[in-house]
Amino acid sequence: MALPGFRDFYPDDCAFRNAIFAKWRDVAYRYGFVEYDGPPLEPLDLFTKKSGDEIVTQLYHFKDKGDRDVALRPEMTPTLARLVTARHKDFKKPLKWFSIPQVFRYERQQKGRLREHYQLNCDIIGEAGLEADIELIALVIDVLRAFGLTEKDFVVRLSDRQFWTDFMNAKAVPEDQRYAFIQAIDKSERESREKTAEKLGPLADEVFTILAHAQSTKSVRLDTVEAGLRHRGLQDYVKRDYTVVRGLAYYTGVVFEAFDRSGEFRAIAGGGRYDTLLKNLGGVDLPALGFGIGDVVLGEIIKGKLPWWEPHGGIHVLIADEIYRTQAMALIQKLRETWHEPIDYSFTAMKVGKQLQLAEERANAYAVIVDQQITTGFVAVKNLTTRNQRIFKVEDVTPEKVNRPNFWDNASIERDREYSTGADPSTSSG
Amino acid sequence: MALPGFRDFYPDDCAFRNAIFAKWRDVAYRYGFVEYDGPPLEPLDLFTKKSGDEIVTQLYHFKDKGDRDVALRPEMTPTLARLVTARHKDFKKPLKWFSIPQVFRYERQQKGRLREHYQLNCDIIGEAGLEADIELIALVIDVLRAFGLTEKDFVVRLSDRQFWTDFMNAKAVPEDQRYAFIQAIDKSERESREKTAEKLGPLADEVFTILAHAQSTKSVRLDTVEAGLRHRGLQDYVKRDYTVVRGLAYYTGVVFEAFDRSGEFRAIAGGGRYDTLLKNLGGVDLPALGFGIGDVVLGEIIKGKLPWWEPHGGIHVLIADEIYRTQAMALIQKLRETWHEPIDYSFTAMKVGKQLQLAEERANAYAVIVDQQITTGFVAVKNLTTRNQRIFKVEDVTPEKVNRPNFWDNASIERDREYSTGADPSTSSG
Repeated sequence: MALPGFRDFYPDDCAFRNAIFAKWRDVAYRYGFVEYDGPPLEPLDLFTKKSGDEIVTQLYHFKDKGDRDVALRPEMTPTLARLVTARHKDFKKPLKWFSIPQVFRYERQQKGRLREHYQLNCDIIGEAGLEADIELIALVIDVLRAFGLTEKDFVVRLSDRQFWTDFMNAKAVPEDQRYAFIQAIDKSERESREKTAEKLGPLADEVFTILAHAQSTKSVRLDTVEAGLRHRGLQDYVKRDYTVVRGLAYYTGVVFEAFDRSGEFRAIAGGGRYDTLLKNLGGVDLPALGFGIGDVVLGEIIKGKLPWWEPHGGIHVLIADEIYRTQAMALIQKLRETWHEPIDYSFTAMKVGKQLQLAEERANAYAVIVDQQITTGFVAVKNLTTRNQRIFKVEDVTPEKVNRPNFWDNASIERDREYSTGADPSTSSG
Repeated sequence: MALPGFRDFYPDDCAFRNAIFAKWRDVAYRYGFVEYDGPPLEPLDLFTKKSGDEIVTQLYHFKDKGDRDVALRPEMTPTLARLVTARHKDFKKPLKWFSIPQVFRYERQQKGRLREHYQLNCDIIGEAGLEADIELIALVIDVLRAFGLTEKDFVVRLSDRQFWTDFMNAKAVPEDQRYAFIQAIDKSERESREKTAEKLGPLADEVFTILAHAQSTKSVRLDTVEAGLRHRGLQDYVKRDYTVVRGLAYYTGVVFEAFDRSGEFRAIAGGGRYDTLLKNLGGVDLPALGFGIGDVVLGEIIKGKLPWWEPHGGIHVLIADEIYRTQAMALIQKLRETWHEPIDYSFTAMKVGKQLQLAEERANAYAVIVDQQITTGFVAVKNLTTRNQRIFKVEDVTPEKVNRPNFWDNASIERDREYSTGADPSTSSG
């Protein structure tokens, strides 16, 4: 058994996970982001420096054999800050970097709560202007759209942390009450109006008005971001919502969270601008912004949609008689060099009908039948979708020739009679 | 700083690493292998059960907050055994599975010695016949060939652990001396003949004869494997060498190690048959075989060859004047949907010559220039290789139309005069 909260990835699970990674990479790549990575094990103080000592209760941490305090990374931002601080002069700003780390938290085990997940992290570093915020939010939208999700499936709630900072300044909210004030807004959706009002005190009414009339509450930053998204045709994917403040203390500007419209799941993604974090971590003074998307909530939402991650295609080479195995192996070697598809075969003697059945179970696209014809340089290729079969010269079994458009449509071509799964005349020596 | 022995992957390093992973996946996929994965953190006893308690000195291990003894995986085989044991009935045998885990060992820090690396693991489970050994060795050869390495660059040394077991049986070597006997053969290449002879005792001469005349020393298993590789045209990549025994105690049949011909590096890859391991680990009784290739030695060998992993291609959209930014962003959104390439642009106002320079530094394939022509639906596309420039309708800036063969060869087409890097007439408002 895997440790509680850790996942095994059997081939189907792994194909699903990798298909998510592939889409993540593809969209980030199109947006001009480049990938980086760091170690899953880091010095413990890299994380306490950012999040305070309380985070230790949630970490997998220990002393290594060199007496170093180390921890499995609970998030990627501290590693990113470390990398950028060490070598920022080597790179032209702005940086557009992404990573797909596995991150770890020792949370009290709840039903279905995991202690690890993968997270797409996209960050832009070195650009203070709102054009970067627009780019980042467009990216989060396009990442979700890449999975076939539409504006009916999800919405990105936009907010402005600086708006609330300005508000608290204007109302002279004391420093030591500000964290609680922000927290009260964060929780206002999930708590009763009375409870929130109590926390907000005399400012409650004004705050409720702002929350209820988000669209008419002025924020130059959000106006600009919304306009920028409109220019890209993405306006239907966002909604202004000042209740979004993002729990973490370090955000400084526009923040956002993506939710499924059904309200069934936790947040799909979240992020925002954190212009002071790199400097506060003892690094360089560079403005920055970023978001994270986990693979678990997203996976739940897209599971059950088209099974586009399931393996299919490929060729199964049927060896009609063991005396042809040697020639079959030479053919297989050649096919593996010319096809970008799985080319498989049976290690041991097996009736041809059984081999064909294997090919069908694996949803292979074609079966290539190696029988006495190979001695004169020919093989039969069976299209497992149309169930038609045609004879090819051995050297013609290439993707170009076999996959020709309309080539397999013709119903009048020779049918597979000899090697059907149903009636097996068995020319096999097995 | 990362922990000693751990690597950071800045974008160039990450691209190199990912290019290695992509080749690994591609070849394993063509061979009909499917990917699996497991947690990097596992119960400690999963590893001690296989390798004994001594392995603990080399592990990153600790007690988690639930008082479980846990360890970062030092290798993948125990996880594979765990997965197969738990669900072997769900899968048709033989299994052809691969994984690319990051694995961790706390080794005393030596110059350049890492404490983590990535490892391609390929295993075949449930097939006792030598056809599986041939398939696996062909795969290791083709994985290395995929990086452009030839029979001049590397050789796979084939050996037969069962041959030595049979030999020790025939010579009645006592059980308690067998491990030392195997170890002496393992080290015979690196130690003096005298020292090896001393260890081997009265059998020394006979063993030296076997090692010196490997090709004429009979092994039905190696004969069969060599013949099978010959049928695939891979005979020049292997060499019989009975000194290869693989340190680990659990191998039972054909074993092999891949080395670079220069002798400059440690083994590139190694593996073999371990038919009794799954059962010994308390699991199912299934024959099995596998190999591992690490990313570090392989990376050293292929580094300096063609920089095929370096990013190139893509489009930089040049915004000639800020008044066209809105239209440029709509165009960029469209390009990102139709091109499978990085589409990038400058967040802030910048002289066109500077933007063009950026595009060239990034080795972009094309620059798309958005200027007053966009108001009538046209843009200039500049081919950054030929340095020619042509006008396109906005909707025609597609891979199909822009990448047309020979389209950019014609020297008589309009040259880029306005927006060359050298002389910048700057129509920019920046």
